[in-house]
Amino acid sequence: MSMYNFNSGPSILPDEVLQQASEGVLNFNNIGLSILEIGHRSDWFVEVMEEARSLVKELMQLDDSYEVLYLHGGATTQFMQVPINLLDENETAAYCDNGIWGSKAIKEAKLFGNVHIACSSKDQNHTYIPKELSVPQHVNYLHYTTNNTVEGTQWHFIPQANVPLIADMSSDIFSREISFSEFSLIYAGAQKNAGAAGVTIVVIKKDILGKIKRTIPSILDYRNHIEAKSLLNTPPVFAVYVSMLTLRWIKKNGGLIEMEKRANERADLFYETLDSLDAFEGKVDRQDRSLMNATFITKNPEHEKLFLDECKQNGMVGIKGHRSVGGLRVSMYNAMPINTVQALCDLMKDFSNKYADALYKTI
Amino acid sequence: MSMYNFNSGPSILPDEVLQQASEGVLNFNNIGLSILEIGHRSDWFVEVMEEARSLVKELMQLDDSYEVLYLHGGATTQFMQVPINLLDENETAAYCDNGIWGSKAIKEAKLFGNVHIACSSKDQNHTYIPKELSVPQHVNYLHYTTNNTVEGTQWHFIPQANVPLIADMSSDIFSREISFSEFSLIYAGAQKNAGAAGVTIVVIKKDILGKIKRTIPSILDYRNHIEAKSLLNTPPVFAVYVSMLTLRWIKKNGGLIEMEKRANERADLFYETLDSLDAFEGKVDRQDRSLMNATFITKNPEHEKLFLDECKQNGMVGIKGHRSVGGLRVSMYNAMPINTVQALCDLMKDFSNKYADALYKTI
Repeated sequence: MSMYNFNSGPSILPDEVLQQASEGVLNFNNIGLSILEIGHRSDWFVEVMEEARSLVKELMQLDDSYEVLYLHGGATTQFMQVPINLLDENETAAYCDNGIWGSKAIKEAKLFGNVHIACSSKDQNHTYIPKELSVPQHVNYLHYTTNNTVEGTQWHFIPQANVPLIADMSSDIFSREISFSEFSLIYAGAQKNAGAAGVTIVVIKKDILGKIKRTIPSILDYRNHIEAKSLLNTPPVFAVYVSMLTLRWIKKNGGLIEMEKRANERADLFYETLDSLDAFEGKVDRQDRSLMNATFITKNPEHEKLFLDECKQNGMVGIKGHRSVGGLRVSMYNAMPINTVQALCDLMKDFSNKYADALYKTI
Repeated sequence: MSMYNFNSGPSILPDEVLQQASEGVLNFNNIGLSILEIGHRSDWFVEVMEEARSLVKELMQLDDSYEVLYLHGGATTQFMQVPINLLDENETAAYCDNGIWGSKAIKEAKLFGNVHIACSSKDQNHTYIPKELSVPQHVNYLHYTTNNTVEGTQWHFIPQANVPLIADMSSDIFSREISFSEFSLIYAGAQKNAGAAGVTIVVIKKDILGKIKRTIPSILDYRNHIEAKSLLNTPPVFAVYVSMLTLRWIKKNGGLIEMEKRANERADLFYETLDSLDAFEGKVDRQDRSLMNATFITKNPEHEKLFLDECKQNGMVGIKGHRSVGGLRVSMYNAMPINTVQALCDLMKDFSNKYADALYKTI
């Protein structure tokens, strides 16, 4: 049975990348050694790291005022690392409170300084993106999560504020062409569109650093990583390699313009199907729907398990919603072919038809 | 040409592990998905994580008063994470200053509390292990590095002090049978004997936690990771998998007793050869020599480049000493067959014979 991978992350990667990564584990670039066995300061690996860093900059069309880092720790580490580098004890940063990940970022920032909530969608369980922000001019930065993996919302505009802009792009990085140079800091766990779990991309406009008084532990100080070109300590070698292969694949397949086109095609197909069926219902405001993660429910709660069972029988995995919100979720990242979405849509149509009569029976 | 891998880390892994890891990247456990594409909260991965954590405990013969964590960040992150969890501002911790990694740990600890130097080998460039320690009774813990990868020394005894003992075992973990239950905290980057780069093992005796007043950032608080069974955030999935495979291999090959036997055989062969040759010379006190990392020099400095060239021509990589100390270094981790050491010894003998006449020419 072929598998259809709707996981929210770690998630689907291009077959070509998996093939190359698998070969690299046995014999990297035909050097007779595994990528897992080579020193991180060897020319072999330094070339991988430099190509990865340079591809990030190229895909984002950033100039040399930016530096790209590949770091350990996941985006969750950035929730702490951003304020420890950029927010002094008596200073304030503005945060958008639009979902589970943003809330976690806010919690950590409060350990280091003051947090001003620029907007919140808490009143409606984060099922929409607020269109109005309040950002005082004296704050150090404005932080938001561009795509809410768990809730299924996405910012389809870049918030405007005359302060440095910081974004957690973990679940929609490299899925669309946006004006990356409007940001002062971007971070993303690689395990959705940028590779496998185990490495985090951080893009920094260098002029925002060095403005606070706190002594930062060496491993958390962005300046040390910039100076060491992401080799301050042993990096997660294989995860960097997989990210580099993934970015090569994106470039070869037409870059971010093409990724965005494909994302729109997948999302259009899925949401049009969703909206046309009696058995299902979307969970978030239509205009704020994520192109990456679609959250929905079965109108009849008893159908949820039935539907998940049918998905499983058809090799479709990762469709259960996040444990914090329940319901259903379909993640459609860069590597997902449109045929996979079509297969799911067909299943949903069949399901809806089959259970149409029973739809309101138990409600 | 077959390759001989003397890298200090990332370093040699068992062929069997590489084969399994490579297959897992294409099709993990025949489920039709890559290990890189499955959710970290799926049963598939939770089983990997639990087997890895349980193998650590089994190999170390630890009881349930200990917890095993697989964390992001490398041992360098532990230099900060240990004191942030265990050392309050006005308290003191004792540290052994025996090499580059210990010095880095000391530097980070000073950001969080006071550091008492229990012993130092700085007077002789860390070429020996001090036999006397001064450990005041009021310190929170004593920290040392069991094996100095860069300098080539190893503690062949466990320092005795009536305070909790903490060790960075990055480069000799799982290479010998020692009394792990004498330690309150053990940490190790996986990229030598415990897997590939990108994950860190932390073993904690739970009763040492919760004794300080500081508010710890969520991602750095060991208690959060214990509660979440190492799934607080997305773990470095593949690196955990490779570590699990590596620990399985250790167990299947006779466990730590057998690893220690092999380490002794490799080290005996190497050091006996080294001591018998005119062209080379060891760098550290014989009784403190590391079984994992042998540091040495060519007696004639001009021979160093010649020797490295011959190594390269013969497919022997990783023999250049660490950039901070120079000279030569041979790393002989668990996965290294004795034949590889023999091949190097043969080369060294040939080299020594060939250049015997020229040995003192330029001195």
